[in-house]
Amino acid sequence: MKSADRGTLRAAAPPAAVLADLSERELIARIQRRLPSPPDWMTVGIGDDAAVVEPERNRLEVLSVDALVEGVHFDRAFTPPDAIGHRALAVNLSDLAAMGATPRLCLLSLVLPGGWPVADFEAMLDGLLTLAARHRMHVAGGNLARSPGPLVIDITVSGTIKRRQIARRSGASPGDELYVTGSIGAAAAGLEVLRETGAAGEGPCATRYLYPEPRVRLGQLVARNRAASACVDLSDGLADAVHRLAEASGVGAIIDDDALPVEPAARDWFSRQSSDVSMRAVTGGDDYELLLAVRPRARRRLAQVTRHSGIPLTRIGVCTAERAVVLRCGSDNEQRDRPMPGGYGHFR
Amino acid sequence: MKSADRGTLRAAAPPAAVLADLSERELIARIQRRLPSPPDWMTVGIGDDAAVVEPERNRLEVLSVDALVEGVHFDRAFTPPDAIGHRALAVNLSDLAAMGATPRLCLLSLVLPGGWPVADFEAMLDGLLTLAARHRMHVAGGNLARSPGPLVIDITVSGTIKRRQIARRSGASPGDELYVTGSIGAAAAGLEVLRETGAAGEGPCATRYLYPEPRVRLGQLVARNRAASACVDLSDGLADAVHRLAEASGVGAIIDDDALPVEPAARDWFSRQSSDVSMRAVTGGDDYELLLAVRPRARRRLAQVTRHSGIPLTRIGVCTAERAVVLRCGSDNEQRDRPMPGGYGHFR
Repeated sequence: MKSADRGTLRAAAPPAAVLADLSERELIARIQRRLPSPPDWMTVGIGDDAAVVEPERNRLEVLSVDALVEGVHFDRAFTPPDAIGHRALAVNLSDLAAMGATPRLCLLSLVLPGGWPVADFEAMLDGLLTLAARHRMHVAGGNLARSPGPLVIDITVSGTIKRRQIARRSGASPGDELYVTGSIGAAAAGLEVLRETGAAGEGPCATRYLYPEPRVRLGQLVARNRAASACVDLSDGLADAVHRLAEASGVGAIIDDDALPVEPAARDWFSRQSSDVSMRAVTGGDDYELLLAVRPRARRRLAQVTRHSGIPLTRIGVCTAERAVVLRCGSDNEQRDRPMPGGYGHFR
Repeated sequence: MKSADRGTLRAAAPPAAVLADLSERELIARIQRRLPSPPDWMTVGIGDDAAVVEPERNRLEVLSVDALVEGVHFDRAFTPPDAIGHRALAVNLSDLAAMGATPRLCLLSLVLPGGWPVADFEAMLDGLLTLAARHRMHVAGGNLARSPGPLVIDITVSGTIKRRQIARRSGASPGDELYVTGSIGAAAAGLEVLRETGAAGEGPCATRYLYPEPRVRLGQLVARNRAASACVDLSDGLADAVHRLAEASGVGAIIDDDALPVEPAARDWFSRQSSDVSMRAVTGGDDYELLLAVRPRARRRLAQVTRHSGIPLTRIGVCTAERAVVLRCGSDNEQRDRPMPGGYGHFR
């Protein structure tokens, strides 16, 4: 019996290491091993009570924080660990992009279940650090804590900007035209595709949901060219973004239903579900595109942004003195206005 | 029956509002209502995609992040909501204190269960914002997310410091004396008192656990007087702090057991449990005192820090060239060295 037992033990595959098998120090070492050498402006990096950095001369600092919570913002069943890391940083980069800032550093606060496989933890870091490197963003510090429940990745980002280039939400005036970058609806359709097909989910929509590309470069070009009177990102969908920009600016908006740049694969998906394609596209979140308000006389500057970024910008509507936000369908002869639906309610 | 039903409905107390009853916007408004007017250097505050702040001239920026997780760092059964808010900020202020920094701003990332009473949310904010105001720290931004599990309060803090005043972990040399602020063991004893007696827990130890006072002013005085060669805070206990300081500095340490400033009420508590008082005091976390390494010739500067801060500093040991970290008991004739236990393992 004894030797048979030993045989069984030898034959069994070694259990996959989970986070609880490692000390906090070992986990931090695994993060540090993946980081490039710190830049000159990082006076004290990871490993002390706090990081110390030199501010950039003649620049203001742009700060934002955003958390990705398992079971709320992602589902481990169909979100590969590298996509979790990518998305956690992407949502923050999108906030910097919406201000027109240049990314500089981030702090990672990771609240992780002890049963999470170490291999998944490393893959998550890969996704996160690959995106960080692409945007020349350095990890200045962070924190590790055990979670008795969901996995939470909370990231604080810091970027820089010149004072006169800040793109706020509140600068739009009646008559300003509204533009959106790229296409909408893809991530919402992708989430549904993934939910239905599980981890096998592929195609343009699933990819857009899993690996969103924050519009950092375009945001910087908008800021440098002072092309926009107001800017906001589409984290919670276009409808929500229009409401937020309109409210902050004290204007209303008419959005042209026919002009919406709905991602073709998403349009197909929503049509197959017999859904109202426009409604689904404007309420779907996670697109991380930018919504811009542009003075009519700044159109030429916006054209330069499009040319230099290579990213399409679609005129989707106009700001109005009348405070309502409406979605307009049909031609001039047969116009029909619908109120723009509200945004995503995080607690309701 | 109908009128009786109505009577019952009228008589019943209205259900306590929970977070899920409110929209994210309403919750943010409740935070904003409590904030003082933003300082001049905050160019864009709460309500845009990101905050924009002016760096302080001729200062470096000190950044840290720390999360408080329900079920890991606190238990709602005996931690009142205002103490949750207080502690969440205090642990971060303690990191700034350990660097010698002056607090400036924070970002609040709140991951909250939908069933949390709104009144508790407001009390948590009270505790947090009262401590923030005391340290002239401004809320620059944040994020709200729903939690499907534990309550998580993640705070990023930013402070400022002059380059030559930074108090790192790594500056200690053999022969430097080790000092600790205030007293130790109180929070660990307090946590046990609270666990045994529940919400009724009172007394100095419970208070120290619930409302720790980060040594911000003392840390700044240490930095300005350049009184310490190295500094670290005691978030995970004195034993852990000595190990971290020694390792970062490449030294060992001998800690004098008899010199440990164990809080008298904690000493009583541990004695009644028939515990090894010193072991309990050095391994107990949550004290948020500071451990300083001080060159013998800087003793006078340290005396000035004590005088100006009003906080006692106790000499507890010395740094050694020999890398071991030991706890030394007994007199010169009968010395007994024990290895200093390891720190708190967050994942093990």
